Amino acid sequence: MGGKGLLIVISGPSGAGKGTVCQEFLKRHPETLLSISMTTRQPRKGEIDGVNYFFRDIKTFEGLIEEGGFLEYAKVYGNYYGTPRGFVNQNLLSGKDVILEIDIQGALQVKDKFDEGIFIFIVPPTMDELRRRIEGRGSETPEELLRRFKSSYSELQFITRYDYLVINDSVEDAATKIESIITAEKCRVDRNMDFYAKLKGGIDNDLSIFR
Amino acid sequence: MGGKGLLIVISGPSGAGKGTVCQEFLKRHPETLLSISMTTRQPRKGEIDGVNYFFRDIKTFEGLIEEGGFLEYAKVYGNYYGTPRGFVNQNLLSGKDVILEIDIQGALQVKDKFDEGIFIFIVPPTMDELRRRIEGRGSETPEELLRRFKSSYSELQFITRYDYLVINDSVEDAATKIESIITAEKCRVDRNMDFYAKLKGGIDNDLSIFR
Repeated sequence: MGGKGLLIVISGPSGAGKGTVCQEFLKRHPETLLSISMTTRQPRKGEIDGVNYFFRDIKTFEGLIEEGGFLEYAKVYGNYYGTPRGFVNQNLLSGKDVILEIDIQGALQVKDKFDEGIFIFIVPPTMDELRRRIEGRGSETPEELLRRFKSSYSELQFITRYDYLVINDSVEDAATKIESIITAEKCRVDRNMDFYAKLKGGIDNDLSIFR
Repeated sequence: MGGKGLLIVISGPSGAGKGTVCQEFLKRHPETLLSISMTTRQPRKGEIDGVNYFFRDIKTFEGLIEEGGFLEYAKVYGNYYGTPRGFVNQNLLSGKDVILEIDIQGALQVKDKFDEGIFIFIVPPTMDELRRRIEGRGSETPEELLRRFKSSYSELQFITRYDYLVINDSVEDAATKIESIITAEKCRVDRNMDFYAKLKGGIDNDLSIFR
């Protein structure tokens, strides 16, 4: 079909398993790009600029904010994190599909700026399962667990801002559903007006063949 | 996911190959129902009521028109043909997906009455290929071929009333795309509000577990 790639925003409450689903999808589709965030925090041992993150200083980051250079950004414990708009656009224009794996607050910022993206909300099959997954991470106090669970629960309300809901009962099935969603989106009429114009443009030649 | 089935309207210009694509899809998905039309024409040898068509007399058919009992209908060479709304609804309510393979005029009537359907437009990869397919049916005069080709061409304009465009370059690929479209549509947030309510409903129990 050629043309511009798709921006696929994969999001959902903490504990839904969006990271695992993304990794499974990317394993099957190495041609798809996982977006790289920009951050002002220091690289950790083994982290590489342009692979794990784009590591930049605060001045550069804030300059980019001024220019509207982020699809979304946030400050967490004094460090900025953001999705550079230029990096994403450049890859989309080259025809690559780009995946953003991102929390709900970030996804809603992206939606305001890039409505033609595909917004997928990953949920666990039941709240019970979400609880198990949050607990499974271990090491937190019961109060902390409850706080995190409540936070995930309250984030569910943003589901209506998304296009698709993918229930993560199995990572493989969830990844397959994302594959189907992308295939279907590429078939949407409004994403194919170029093909339509080309098809219609074929008429003069074809009619002459009959004459 | 349970719940109501989907109405999948597969349509496109004459010569696009929608019939072949539908047959391929139904071969893979015998659980999906191909809608049965009602007609006032006489059964041909071997045709069975309730399998090939619902054969009814004109009075019954016109009575149903009066009651709004058709998703679409047309009179062709003195015989009525139509898609009975009751038959389709009954199957959708039982959870079955229903396919309507139908010409463009019919599809547009369905769209006015059943907007929650999925409207798929099948096109040949090029107008040249459409010409070959129309010619391949043989037995028509050049004038008739040209008339049919022009008619198919002018029908392309209705593409914008559809949700999806599927390019029929190979029957297998086209059927796979329809599979993806159906999977994706079943993931649409607005089709999953029941699941969302159920998921949210699980909260009281789950919170009590933490207490």
